[in-house]
Amino acid sequence: MTTLERHGDVFILDLGDGENRFHPDWIAAVNGHLDEVVKAGNPAALVTTATGKFFSNGLDLDWLGSSGADFGDYVADVHALFARVLALPVITVAALQGHTFAAGAMLSLAHDFRVMRADRGFWCLPEVDIQIPFSRGMSALIQARLTPQVAHEAMTTGRRYGGADAQAAGIVDRALSEEAVRAAAVEIAEANTAKAGQTLSTIKERMYAPALDVLRDRATALT
Amino acid sequence: MTTLERHGDVFILDLGDGENRFHPDWIAAVNGHLDEVVKAGNPAALVTTATGKFFSNGLDLDWLGSSGADFGDYVADVHALFARVLALPVITVAALQGHTFAAGAMLSLAHDFRVMRADRGFWCLPEVDIQIPFSRGMSALIQARLTPQVAHEAMTTGRRYGGADAQAAGIVDRALSEEAVRAAAVEIAEANTAKAGQTLSTIKERMYAPALDVLRDRATALT
Amino acid sequence: MTTLERHGDVFILDLGDGENRFHPDWIAAVNGHLDEVVKAGNPAALVTTATGKFFSNGLDLDWLGSSGADFGDYVADVHALFARVLALPVITVAALQGHTFAAGAMLSLAHDFRVMRADRGFWCLPEVDIQIPFSRGMSALIQARLTPQVAHEAMTTGRRYGGADAQAAGIVDRALSEEAVRAAAVEIAEANTAKAGQTLSTIKERMYAPALDVLRDRATALT
Repeated sequence: MTTLERHGDVFILDLGDGENRFHPDWIAAVNGHLDEVVKAGNPAALVTTATGKFFSNGLDLDWLGSSGADFGDYVADVHALFARVLALPVITVAALQGHTFAAGAMLSLAHDFRVMRADRGFWCLPEVDIQIPFSRGMSALIQARLTPQVAHEAMTTGRRYGGADAQAAGIVDRALSEEAVRAAAVEIAEANTAKAGQTLSTIKERMYAPALDVLRDRATALT
Repeated sequence: MTTLERHGDVFILDLGDGENRFHPDWIAAVNGHLDEVVKAGNPAALVTTATGKFFSNGLDLDWLGSSGADFGDYVADVHALFARVLALPVITVAALQGHTFAAGAMLSLAHDFRVMRADRGFWCLPEVDIQIPFSRGMSALIQARLTPQVAHEAMTTGRRYGGADAQAAGIVDRALSEEAVRAAAVEIAEANTAKAGQTLSTIKERMYAPALDVLRDRATALT
Repeated sequence: MTTLERHGDVFILDLGDGENRFHPDWIAAVNGHLDEVVKAGNPAALVTTATGKFFSNGLDLDWLGSSGADFGDYVADVHALFARVLALPVITVAALQGHTFAAGAMLSLAHDFRVMRADRGFWCLPEVDIQIPFSRGMSALIQARLTPQVAHEAMTTGRRYGGADAQAAGIVDRALSEEAVRAAAVEIAEANTAKAGQTLSTIKERMYAPALDVLRDRATALT
């Protein structure tokens, strides 16, 4: 179950204590929490984290297979969440306390900053191994946030990055011991609550206009 | 007052000894100096620096507020200067001897190389704090010259980079003691005077075609 | 003379023991070898290397001058080879055992990974010095694979990177002693033979769609 807590001007969104896959109900709950963050006005900042072994394990393929849902509609909803976080009018920090895979890793890249646990857990884009190519929207997001060769290796080989490797590659900003991850993320958020607002929103919209355009185009979600 | 001196094949453009803000007269004077550099033919190279505490403190908002000038026209003139330096047919080196803020920082990014004073002075994009979002042209310039996460942090948080931090982030190529900054910039320029000419111009025009297109479109300067 | 050998699931393409310039016969031979790699199916990976002092010295300007061939057609063929390697549906590793210049350096960037000899040999884009500006397709390839300031310095100054410098700049993934270069490249290839296939192809096509579009447009090869 996802939760949202407020500590001073910092909101802490917990994505859950399971694999935290992108089930439609989970997506709806996360969007509801983001509504609350945006409605609260300024100053504000957001830390996104989770409880347990996983930050998020990505798309809910079991649900997708059994539900008979339209894959294009589902991916469009996932894209919309990426776009929303990427352009959120507050500073956002992902505190990666556990495994961060596939769409979970992409969600982490939609945040302004990432802090990762150093001793256990991987950040990984396994799409090449599970035979699900990145959509153009996913490619645009990943390539907008990583340097060329880091994006290339992550996307073409499915390399699993531990915390130190992820920091060396610039995938995360800091890699820390387990107990320090959330506190460091909150510290970054607290230092930046005053940035929230319309100017930050416009800055992000213009910086990521090409990726946002692709992510927001529901009709081409599967291409 | 801006000045242009020639030492051998290296031109040294001094942006002034004040805050060196982008007043229309200052922009016109800088453009006049650039005319002279281009007219001189090859071999040639340019070092841009200043005298005193500031390299440049950016847009002249006091003048803009009191003059009643059109903000779009003014930004279009600033964009045109960025585009001109970005595509200048000689190698250009910015010697950042003092504070380099906002449009001053963008002007530094339009140069081929940057050398910064290590012990004092900041490189900073404070737009998010002063509530003036980057135009699309400014975003395109900054994002074309910095790695994704460096551009992101600089643009969304207004972080002030000292010399060592700016070098670690790849914003500047070297950070040196005060007395070494200009000499190092001149050394880079001298080593590259033979690069000047039509081929270098074509290389730069093609490399930065997307950013140059936006910067040169006066009609969309405010978007 | 170019050769293709197969060791297990790793193909080793040798570009020759001369300057290995892009003569039309050489391009045709390399394309024939790539046909064979692709036809072999999965699992597979490719190591491209050469024998002697050069990996490749780039375009065959002597042939071009004496043949009366159309420069646009020739560049379009070179672009097509870059595009083919960039989107090849197997993991590709360039083992740079010798000088890697101009179009040879671009061909190395079309590979997924690069291993370079540390003690001798340069990686260099000398176009600004030999007065042949990069085509838009070449710019797109280089800029899609290197960080902004590395691409900028390499393209505007023609800097010669030794192995250690190339590794520090992220142009190559590893710089090793002469006898270790090919083995390290084969090791990377062997670890990734299972990635080959349609998913990898789609991932690469989407990642590099803008560069591939320009490289494949024969009509605009000279712009």
